[in-house]
Amino acid sequence: MSGRLLGIGVGPGDPELVTLKAMRALKEADLVVHFAKTGSASQARKIAASHLKTGVEELPLYYPLTSEVPRHGCVYRDALREFYDAAAGSLAVQLDAGRAVAVICEGDPFFYGSYMHLHVRLASRYPTQVIAGVTGMSGCWSAAGTPIAQGDDVFMVLPATLPESELERRLADADAAVVMKLGRHLPKIRRTLARIGRLEHAIYVERGSTAAAVMTPLADKPDDLAPYFAIVLMPGWGERL
Amino acid sequence: MSGRLLGIGVGPGDPELVTLKAMRALKEADLVVHFAKTGSASQARKIAASHLKTGVEELPLYYPLTSEVPRHGCVYRDALREFYDAAAGSLAVQLDAGRAVAVICEGDPFFYGSYMHLHVRLASRYPTQVIAGVTGMSGCWSAAGTPIAQGDDVFMVLPATLPESELERRLADADAAVVMKLGRHLPKIRRTLARIGRLEHAIYVERGSTAAAVMTPLADKPDDLAPYFAIVLMPGWGERL
Repeated sequence: MSGRLLGIGVGPGDPELVTLKAMRALKEADLVVHFAKTGSASQARKIAASHLKTGVEELPLYYPLTSEVPRHGCVYRDALREFYDAAAGSLAVQLDAGRAVAVICEGDPFFYGSYMHLHVRLASRYPTQVIAGVTGMSGCWSAAGTPIAQGDDVFMVLPATLPESELERRLADADAAVVMKLGRHLPKIRRTLARIGRLEHAIYVERGSTAAAVMTPLADKPDDLAPYFAIVLMPGWGERL
Repeated sequence: MSGRLLGIGVGPGDPELVTLKAMRALKEADLVVHFAKTGSASQARKIAASHLKTGVEELPLYYPLTSEVPRHGCVYRDALREFYDAAAGSLAVQLDAGRAVAVICEGDPFFYGSYMHLHVRLASRYPTQVIAGVTGMSGCWSAAGTPIAQGDDVFMVLPATLPESELERRLADADAAVVMKLGRHLPKIRRTLARIGRLEHAIYVERGSTAAAVMTPLADKPDDLAPYFAIVLMPGWGERL
Protein backbone atom coordinates (compact mmCIF):
# COMPACT_ATOMS: atom_id res chain seq x y z
CA MET A 1 0.00 0.00 0.00
CA SER A 2 1.34 3.38 -1.06
CA GLY A 3 1.67 6.34 1.26
CA ARG A 4 0.28 9.84 0.89
CA LEU A 5 2.03 13.10 0.12
CA LEU A 6 0.70 16.23 1.83
CA GLY A 7 1.79 19.77 0.97
CA ILE A 8 0.64 21.78 3.96
CA GLY A 9 0.53 25.58 4.05
CA VAL A 10 1.09 26.78 7.62
CA GLY A 11 0.48 30.45 6.92
CA PRO A 12 2.53 33.61 7.29
CA GLY A 13 4.03 33.21 10.76
CA ASP A 14 1.45 33.41 13.54
CA PRO A 15 0.75 29.80 14.70
CA GLU A 16 -2.90 30.87 15.10
CA LEU A 17 -3.09 31.56 11.35
CA VAL A 18 -2.78 27.82 10.67
CA THR A 19 -6.01 26.30 9.32
CA LEU A 20 -7.94 23.51 11.00
CA LYS A 21 -7.27 21.38 7.93
CA ALA A 22 -3.51 21.85 8.25
CA MET A 23 -3.61 21.16 11.97
CA ARG A 24 -5.55 17.93 11.49
CA ALA A 25 -3.32 16.80 8.64
CA LEU A 26 -0.26 17.36 10.83
CA LYS A 27 -1.74 15.08 13.49
CA GLU A 28 -1.96 12.28 10.90
CA ALA A 29 1.51 12.69 9.44
CA ASP A 30 4.08 9.93 9.98
CA LEU A 31 6.92 12.15 8.77
CA VAL A 32 7.12 15.94 8.80
CA VAL A 33 9.42 17.48 6.18
CA HIS A 34 10.62 21.09 6.13
CA PHE A 35 13.07 23.23 4.18
CA ALA A 36 15.69 25.37 5.89
CA LYS A 37 18.95 27.13 5.30
CA THR A 38 21.94 25.22 6.64
CA GLY A 39 22.49 26.32 10.20
CA SER A 40 19.02 27.81 10.58
CA ALA A 41 15.77 26.45 11.90
CA SER A 42 12.96 26.12 9.36
CA GLN A 43 10.42 28.97 9.55
CA ALA A 44 7.61 26.56 8.70
CA ARG A 45 8.81 24.29 11.52
CA LYS A 46 8.68 27.18 14.00
CA ILE A 47 5.15 28.11 12.91
CA ALA A 48 3.88 24.52 13.10
CA ALA A 49 5.76 23.55 16.26
CA SER A 50 2.77 23.65 18.61
CA HIS A 51 0.70 21.57 16.17
CA LEU A 52 3.14 18.65 15.73
CA LYS A 53 2.58 15.32 17.43
CA THR A 54 5.04 14.82 20.27
CA GLY A 55 8.01 12.84 19.00
CA VAL A 56 6.87 12.74 15.37
CA GLU A 57 9.70 11.88 12.98
CA GLU A 58 11.08 14.89 11.11
CA LEU A 59 13.21 15.35 8.01
CA PRO A 60 14.82 18.75 7.54
CA LEU A 61 15.92 19.51 3.98
CA TYR A 62 18.81 21.98 3.90
CA TYR A 63 19.18 24.15 0.79
CA PRO A 64 22.54 23.37 -0.75
CA LEU A 65 23.90 26.82 -1.56
CA THR A 66 24.20 30.26 -0.16
CA SER A 67 24.79 33.68 -1.63
CA GLU A 68 28.34 33.11 -2.84
CA VAL A 69 27.13 31.39 -6.02
CA PRO A 70 25.35 33.50 -8.70
CA ARG A 71 21.64 32.67 -8.43
CA HIS A 72 20.98 32.55 -12.15
CA GLY A 73 24.08 30.60 -13.15
CA CYS A 74 24.24 26.96 -14.23
CA VAL A 75 26.12 25.87 -11.12
CA TYR A 76 23.36 27.15 -8.88
CA ARG A 77 20.60 25.67 -10.99
CA ASP A 78 22.33 22.30 -11.27
CA ALA A 79 22.94 22.14 -7.53
CA LEU A 80 19.32 22.98 -6.79
CA ARG A 81 18.05 20.44 -9.30
CA GLU A 82 20.18 17.73 -7.72
CA PHE A 83 19.01 18.78 -4.27
CA TYR A 84 15.31 18.54 -5.21
CA ASP A 85 15.89 15.24 -7.05
CA ALA A 86 17.59 13.75 -3.99
CA ALA A 87 14.91 15.13 -1.64
CA ALA A 88 12.13 13.68 -3.80
CA GLY A 89 14.02 10.37 -3.79
CA SER A 90 14.14 10.33 0.03
CA LEU A 91 10.44 11.08 0.23
CA ALA A 92 9.63 8.37 -2.34
CA VAL A 93 11.27 5.78 -0.08
CA GLN A 94 8.99 6.85 2.75
CA LEU A 95 5.92 6.94 0.50
CA ASP A 96 6.71 3.48 -0.86
CA ALA A 97 6.75 2.29 2.76
CA GLY A 98 3.14 3.47 3.08
CA ARG A 99 3.77 6.49 5.22
CA ALA A 100 1.90 9.82 5.30
CA VAL A 101 4.56 12.38 4.44
CA ALA A 102 3.74 16.03 5.23
CA VAL A 103 5.84 18.81 3.72
CA ILE A 104 5.14 21.97 5.70
CA CYS A 105 5.43 25.31 3.93
CA GLU A 106 5.34 28.92 5.06
CA GLY A 107 2.40 30.71 3.48
CA ASP A 108 0.66 28.83 0.68
CA PRO A 109 2.39 25.78 -0.88
CA PHE A 110 1.67 26.71 -4.53
CA PHE A 111 2.46 30.43 -4.20
CA TYR A 112 6.24 30.80 -4.53
CA GLY A 113 6.87 27.77 -2.26
CA SER A 114 9.74 25.25 -2.37
CA TYR A 115 7.25 22.43 -1.94
CA MET A 116 6.34 22.85 -5.61
CA HIS A 117 9.68 21.30 -6.61
CA LEU A 118 8.79 18.13 -4.70
CA HIS A 119 5.19 18.18 -5.91
CA VAL A 120 6.09 18.07 -9.60
CA ARG A 121 8.47 15.17 -8.92
CA LEU A 122 6.05 13.07 -6.84
CA ALA A 123 2.38 13.99 -7.31
CA SER A 124 1.91 11.88 -10.44
CA ARG A 125 3.15 8.78 -8.58
CA TYR A 126 1.47 9.04 -5.16
CA PRO A 127 -1.90 10.17 -3.77
CA THR A 128 -1.29 13.83 -3.03
CA GLN A 129 -3.19 16.59 -1.27
CA VAL A 130 -2.26 20.25 -1.12
CA ILE A 131 -3.70 22.29 1.73
CA ALA A 132 -3.92 26.00 0.95
CA GLY A 133 -2.51 28.42 3.50
CA VAL A 134 -2.72 32.12 4.29
CA THR A 135 0.00 33.79 2.19
CA GLY A 136 2.77 35.88 3.71
CA MET A 137 1.44 38.95 1.92
CA SER A 138 -2.10 38.53 3.32
CA GLY A 139 -0.53 38.31 6.77
CA CYS A 140 1.36 41.54 6.06
CA TRP A 141 -1.48 43.70 4.75
CA SER A 142 -3.82 42.45 7.49
CA ALA A 143 -1.31 43.21 10.24
CA ALA A 144 -0.63 46.62 8.67
CA GLY A 145 -4.36 47.42 8.51
CA THR A 146 -3.98 48.18 4.80
CA PRO A 147 -6.77 47.17 2.41
CA ILE A 148 -4.94 46.11 -0.75
CA ALA A 149 -7.33 45.56 -3.67
CA GLN A 150 -11.02 46.08 -4.44
CA GLY A 151 -13.53 45.89 -7.27
CA ASP A 152 -11.85 45.77 -10.67
CA ASP A 153 -8.34 46.53 -9.41
CA VAL A 154 -5.44 44.99 -11.31
CA PHE A 155 -3.17 43.46 -8.66
CA MET A 156 0.46 42.41 -9.24
CA VAL A 157 3.20 40.60 -7.38
CA LEU A 158 6.63 41.69 -8.57
CA PRO A 159 10.12 40.65 -7.49
CA ALA A 160 12.31 43.62 -6.50
CA THR A 161 15.08 42.02 -8.57
CA LEU A 162 13.53 43.33 -11.82
CA PRO A 163 15.43 46.11 -13.63
CA GLU A 164 14.37 49.58 -12.50
CA SER A 165 12.84 50.53 -15.84
CA GLU A 166 10.74 47.37 -15.88
CA LEU A 167 9.61 47.88 -12.28
CA GLU A 168 8.53 51.41 -13.17
CA ARG A 169 6.63 50.29 -16.26
CA ARG A 170 4.83 47.53 -14.36
CA LEU A 171 4.04 49.47 -11.17
CA ALA A 172 2.71 52.41 -13.19
CA ASP A 173 0.39 49.93 -14.90
CA ALA A 174 -0.97 48.37 -11.67
CA ASP A 175 -3.74 49.50 -9.35
CA ALA A 176 -2.26 47.53 -6.46
CA ALA A 177 1.00 45.65 -6.02
CA VAL A 178 3.25 43.77 -3.68
CA VAL A 179 6.99 44.03 -4.28
CA MET A 180 8.79 41.10 -2.72
CA LYS A 181 12.39 39.98 -2.12
CA LEU A 182 13.47 43.50 -1.19
CA GLY A 183 16.93 43.09 0.36
CA ARG A 184 19.42 45.47 -1.24
CA HIS A 185 16.83 46.55 -3.84
CA LEU A 186 14.90 48.86 -1.51
CA PRO A 187 16.43 52.15 -2.77
CA LYS A 188 15.36 51.23 -6.30
CA ILE A 189 11.77 50.58 -5.18
CA ARG A 190 11.63 53.84 -3.25
CA ARG A 191 12.88 55.84 -6.27
CA THR A 192 10.46 54.09 -8.62
CA LEU A 193 7.41 54.64 -6.42
CA ALA A 194 8.35 58.29 -5.95
CA ARG A 195 8.68 58.81 -9.73
CA ILE A 196 5.23 57.36 -10.45
CA GLY A 197 3.60 59.25 -7.56
CA ARG A 198 2.83 56.18 -5.46
CA LEU A 199 5.38 56.53 -2.64
CA GLU A 200 3.04 58.39 -0.31
CA HIS A 201 0.74 55.43 0.44
CA ALA A 202 3.32 52.63 0.13
CA ILE A 203 3.91 50.52 3.24
CA TYR A 204 7.13 48.73 4.18
CA VAL A 205 6.59 45.44 6.05
CA GLU A 206 9.20 43.20 7.65
CA ARG A 207 8.34 39.91 9.43
CA GLY A 208 4.64 40.72 8.87
CA SER A 209 2.83 38.30 11.13
CA THR A 210 5.32 37.87 13.95
CA ALA A 211 5.67 39.71 17.23
CA ALA A 212 8.82 41.36 15.81
CA ALA A 213 6.91 42.87 12.86
CA VAL A 214 8.07 46.20 11.43
CA MET A 215 5.41 48.15 9.54
CA THR A 216 5.92 51.72 8.47
CA PRO A 217 5.01 54.03 5.61
CA LEU A 218 7.92 53.56 3.22
CA ALA A 219 8.26 57.35 2.95
CA ASP A 220 8.98 57.47 6.72
CA LYS A 221 11.57 54.66 6.79
CA PRO A 222 14.82 56.42 7.66
CA ASP A 223 17.21 53.92 6.08
CA ASP A 224 17.40 51.56 3.12
CA LEU A 225 18.15 48.42 5.12
CA ALA A 226 15.79 45.53 4.39
CA PRO A 227 16.01 41.78 4.79
CA TYR A 228 15.42 39.59 1.74
CA PHE A 229 11.90 38.64 2.81
CA ALA A 230 10.67 42.17 3.53
CA ILE A 231 7.98 43.47 1.17
CA VAL A 232 6.46 46.75 0.06
CA LEU A 233 2.69 47.11 -0.30
CA MET A 234 1.35 49.52 -2.90
CA PRO A 235 -2.36 49.66 -1.98
CA GLY A 236 -4.97 49.99 -4.68
CA TRP A 237 -8.64 50.86 -4.39
CA GLY A 238 -8.21 54.47 -5.47
CA GLU A 239 -11.86 55.09 -6.17
CA ARG A 240 -13.52 54.57 -2.81
CA LEU A 241 -17.26 54.91 -2.38
CA MET B 1 -15.99 51.25 27.21
CA SER B 2 -15.84 50.93 23.45
CA GLY B 3 -16.32 47.67 21.59
CA ARG B 4 -14.03 45.98 19.10
CA LEU B 5 -14.36 45.55 15.36
CA LEU B 6 -13.10 42.29 13.86
CA GLY B 7 -12.73 41.63 10.14
CA ILE B 8 -12.47 37.87 9.93
CA GLY B 9 -11.39 35.98 6.83
CA VAL B 10 -13.07 32.57 6.78
CA GLY B 11 -11.26 31.25 3.71
CA PRO B 12 -12.37 30.00 0.31
CA GLY B 13 -15.24 27.68 1.19
CA ASP B 14 -14.14 24.56 3.04
CA PRO B 15 -14.97 25.10 6.76
CA GLU B 16 -11.70 23.29 7.53
CA LEU B 17 -9.76 26.07 5.78
CA VAL B 18 -10.74 28.48 8.57
CA THR B 19 -7.77 29.47 10.75
CA LEU B 20 -7.56 28.84 14.49
CA LYS B 21 -7.41 32.61 14.96
CA ALA B 22 -10.68 33.12 13.08
CA MET B 23 -12.34 30.30 14.96
CA ARG B 24 -11.33 31.69 18.34
CA ALA B 25 -12.35 35.23 17.39
CA LEU B 26 -15.78 33.93 16.35
CA LYS B 27 -16.22 32.39 19.79
CA GLU B 28 -15.68 35.82 21.38
CA ALA B 29 -17.97 37.79 19.08
CA ASP B 30 -21.16 39.31 20.49
CA LEU B 31 -22.51 40.03 17.02
CA VAL B 32 -21.69 38.26 13.75
CA VAL B 33 -22.17 40.36 10.59
CA HIS B 34 -22.23 39.04 7.02
CA PHE B 35 -22.97 40.32 3.52
CA ALA B 36 -25.38 38.58 1.19
CA LYS B 37 -27.47 39.12 -1.87
CA THR B 38 -31.15 39.69 -1.07
CA GLY B 39 -32.84 36.31 -1.06
CA SER B 40 -29.57 34.38 -0.72
CA ALA B 41 -27.69 33.04 2.27
CA SER B 42 -24.27 34.57 2.87
CA GLN B 43 -21.40 32.40 1.62
CA ALA B 44 -19.24 33.50 4.55
CA ARG B 45 -22.08 32.52 6.92
CA LYS B 46 -22.25 29.03 5.36
CA ILE B 47 -18.48 28.57 5.72
CA ALA B 48 -18.42 29.77 9.32
CA ALA B 49 -21.65 28.06 10.42
CA SER B 50 -20.02 25.25 12.38
CA HIS B 51 -17.75 27.73 14.18
CA LEU B 52 -20.45 30.11 15.46
CA LYS B 53 -21.59 30.08 19.08
CA THR B 54 -25.06 28.61 19.41
CA GLY B 55 -27.61 31.40 19.38
CA VAL B 56 -25.11 34.20 18.76
CA GLU B 57 -26.78 37.36 17.47
CA GLU B 58 -26.38 37.90 13.73
CA LEU B 59 -26.80 40.85 11.41
CA PRO B 60 -27.08 40.07 7.70
CA LEU B 61 -26.33 43.00 5.37
CA TYR B 62 -28.15 42.68 2.05
CA TYR B 63 -26.57 44.38 -0.97
CA PRO B 64 -29.05 46.94 -2.24
CA LEU B 65 -28.98 46.38 -5.98
CA THR B 66 -28.99 43.69 -8.56
CA SER B 67 -27.95 43.49 -12.18
CA GLU B 68 -30.67 45.77 -13.60
CA VAL B 69 -28.69 48.91 -12.69
CA PRO B 70 -25.45 49.69 -14.62
CA ARG B 71 -22.55 48.83 -12.29
CA HIS B 72 -20.41 51.82 -13.13
CA GLY B 73 -23.15 54.40 -13.11
CA CYS B 74 -23.82 57.06 -10.47
CA VAL B 75 -27.07 55.48 -9.31
CA TYR B 76 -25.29 52.23 -8.50
CA ARG B 77 -22.40 53.98 -6.78
CA ASP B 78 -24.67 56.25 -4.75
CA ALA B 79 -26.82 53.35 -3.64
CA LEU B 80 -23.77 51.35 -2.58
CA ARG B 81 -22.29 54.31 -0.73
CA GLU B 82 -25.53 54.82 1.18
CA PHE B 83 -25.69 51.11 1.92
CA TYR B 84 -22.17 51.04 3.38
CA ASP B 85 -22.77 54.29 5.30
CA ALA B 86 -25.93 52.87 6.85
CA ALA B 87 -24.25 49.52 7.61
CA ALA B 88 -21.32 51.28 9.29
CA GLY B 89 -23.82 53.33 11.29
CA SER B 90 -25.56 50.18 12.54
CA LEU B 91 -22.23 48.66 13.53
CA ALA B 92 -21.17 51.89 15.30
CA VAL B 93 -24.23 51.64 17.55
CA GLN B 94 -23.17 48.14 18.56
CA LEU B 95 -19.54 49.17 19.02
CA ASP B 96 -20.56 52.16 21.15
CA ALA B 97 -22.44 49.68 23.35
CA GLY B 98 -19.13 47.91 24.00
CA ARG B 99 -19.79 44.84 21.90
CA ALA B 100 -17.31 42.71 19.93
CA VAL B 101 -18.58 42.93 16.34
CA ALA B 102 -17.23 40.32 13.91
CA VAL B 103 -17.67 40.85 10.16
CA ILE B 104 -17.06 37.51 8.46
CA CYS B 105 -15.67 37.52 4.93
CA GLU B 106 -15.11 34.85 2.31
CA GLY B 107 -11.41 34.53 1.53
CA ASP B 108 -9.22 37.31 2.91
CA PRO B 109 -10.88 40.51 4.20
CA PHE B 110 -8.47 42.97 2.51
CA PHE B 111 -8.30 41.15 -0.85
CA TYR B 112 -11.35 42.27 -2.87
CA GLY B 113 -13.64 41.95 0.18
CA SER B 114 -16.75 43.98 1.02
CA TYR B 115 -15.54 44.30 4.62
CA MET B 116 -13.08 46.94 3.41
CA HIS B 117 -15.97 49.39 2.96
CA LEU B 118 -16.84 49.05 6.65
CA HIS B 119 -13.21 49.08 7.73
CA VAL B 120 -12.45 52.47 6.19
CA ARG B 121 -15.56 53.91 7.86
CA LEU B 122 -14.92 52.50 11.35
CA ALA B 123 -11.29 51.48 11.96
CA SER B 124 -10.12 54.97 12.89
CA ARG B 125 -12.80 55.21 15.60
CA TYR B 126 -12.74 51.77 17.25
CA PRO B 127 -10.10 49.17 18.18
CA THR B 128 -9.97 46.98 15.10
CA GLN B 129 -8.33 43.69 14.17
CA VAL B 130 -8.23 42.09 10.74
CA ILE B 131 -7.63 38.35 10.60
CA ALA B 132 -6.13 37.20 7.30
CA GLY B 133 -7.77 34.28 5.53
CA VAL B 134 -6.94 31.83 2.77
CA THR B 135 -7.97 33.53 -0.49
CA GLY B 136 -10.45 32.01 -2.90
CA MET B 137 -7.73 31.72 -5.53
CA SER B 138 -5.38 29.80 -3.21
CA GLY B 139 -8.24 27.42 -2.54
CA CYS B 140 -8.72 27.00 -6.29
CA TRP B 141 -5.13 26.33 -7.35
CA SER B 142 -4.61 23.99 -4.39
CA ALA B 143 -7.74 21.99 -5.17
CA ALA B 144 -6.75 21.90 -8.84
CA GLY B 145 -3.23 20.64 -7.99
CA THR B 146 -1.80 23.52 -10.05
CA PRO B 147 1.37 25.26 -8.82
CA ILE B 148 0.82 28.91 -9.77
CA ALA B 149 3.99 30.99 -9.27
CA GLN B 150 7.64 30.40 -8.40
CA GLY B 151 10.95 32.21 -8.13
CA ASP B 152 10.92 35.58 -9.88
CA ASP B 153 7.55 35.08 -11.59
CA VAL B 154 5.43 38.18 -12.15
CA PHE B 155 1.95 37.28 -10.94
CA MET B 156 -1.23 39.21 -11.78
CA VAL B 157 -4.88 39.24 -10.79
CA LEU B 158 -7.05 40.66 -13.56
CA PRO B 159 -10.82 41.17 -13.81
CA ALA B 160 -12.34 39.53 -16.89
CA THR B 161 -14.28 42.75 -17.41
CA LEU B 162 -11.21 44.47 -18.95
CA PRO B 163 -11.36 45.18 -22.70
CA GLU B 164 -10.01 42.31 -24.80
CA SER B 165 -7.00 44.29 -26.08
CA GLU B 166 -6.00 45.23 -22.54
CA LEU B 167 -6.43 41.66 -21.29
CA GLU B 168 -4.17 40.47 -24.08
CA ARG B 169 -1.52 43.08 -23.39
CA ARG B 170 -1.49 42.30 -19.66
CA LEU B 171 -1.66 38.50 -19.88
CA ALA B 172 1.14 38.45 -22.47
CA ASP B 173 3.23 40.43 -19.98
CA ALA B 174 2.60 38.08 -17.00
CA ASP B 175 4.33 34.86 -16.00
CA ALA B 176 1.30 33.75 -14.01
CA ALA B 177 -2.20 35.14 -13.66
CA VAL B 178 -5.65 34.66 -12.23
CA VAL B 179 -8.56 36.04 -14.24
CA MET B 180 -11.57 36.59 -12.00
CA LYS B 181 -15.24 37.56 -12.38
CA LEU B 182 -15.64 35.43 -15.49
CA GLY B 183 -19.39 35.23 -16.08
CA ARG B 184 -20.21 36.12 -19.68
CA HIS B 185 -16.58 37.10 -20.38
CA LEU B 186 -15.29 33.55 -20.71
CA PRO B 187 -15.21 33.47 -24.57
CA LYS B 188 -13.02 36.59 -24.53
CA ILE B 189 -10.59 34.99 -22.08
CA ARG B 190 -10.42 31.81 -24.11
CA ARG B 191 -9.67 33.73 -27.34
CA THR B 192 -7.06 35.90 -25.63
CA LEU B 193 -5.20 32.97 -24.06
CA ALA B 194 -5.23 31.11 -27.39
CA ARG B 195 -3.78 34.13 -29.22
CA ILE B 196 -0.88 34.51 -26.77
CA GLY B 197 -0.18 30.76 -26.71
CA ARG B 198 -1.22 30.21 -23.09
CA LEU B 199 -4.52 28.36 -23.52
CA GLU B 200 -2.98 24.90 -23.32
CA HIS B 201 -2.12 25.06 -19.60
CA ALA B 202 -4.96 27.31 -18.44
CA ILE B 203 -7.36 25.84 -15.87
CA TYR B 204 -11.01 26.76 -15.41
CA VAL B 205 -12.22 26.58 -11.77
CA GLU B 206 -15.74 26.98 -10.46
CA ARG B 207 -16.63 26.81 -6.74
CA GLY B 208 -12.99 25.93 -6.03
CA SER B 209 -12.99 24.65 -2.49
CA THR B 210 -16.45 23.14 -2.22
CA ALA B 211 -17.66 19.62 -2.81
CA ALA B 212 -19.34 20.87 -6.00
CA ALA B 213 -16.06 22.14 -7.47
CA VAL B 214 -15.56 22.09 -11.24
CA MET B 215 -11.94 22.05 -12.38
CA THR B 216 -10.97 21.43 -15.96
CA PRO B 217 -8.37 22.49 -18.49
CA LEU B 218 -10.00 25.50 -20.14
CA ALA B 219 -9.18 24.04 -23.56
CA ASP B 220 -11.36 21.00 -22.68
CA LYS B 221 -14.37 22.95 -21.40
CA PRO B 222 -17.09 22.25 -23.96
CA ASP B 223 -19.17 25.40 -23.39
CA ASP B 224 -18.71 29.04 -22.49
CA LEU B 225 -21.02 29.04 -19.49
CA ALA B 226 -19.44 30.39 -16.31
CA PRO B 227 -20.82 31.88 -13.11
CA TYR B 228 -19.60 35.32 -12.04
CA PHE B 229 -17.25 33.92 -9.39
CA ALA B 230 -15.54 31.33 -11.60
CA ILE B 231 -11.87 31.98 -12.35
CA VAL B 232 -9.22 30.98 -14.85
CA LEU B 233 -5.70 30.09 -13.68
CA MET B 234 -2.79 30.79 -16.01
CA PRO B 235 0.06 28.97 -14.24
CA GLY B 236 3.56 30.39 -14.34
CA TRP B 237 6.83 28.74 -13.40
CA GLY B 238 7.88 28.08 -16.98
CA GLU B 239 11.52 27.40 -16.24
CA ARG B 240 11.38 24.37 -13.94
CA LEU B 241 14.54 22.88 -12.47
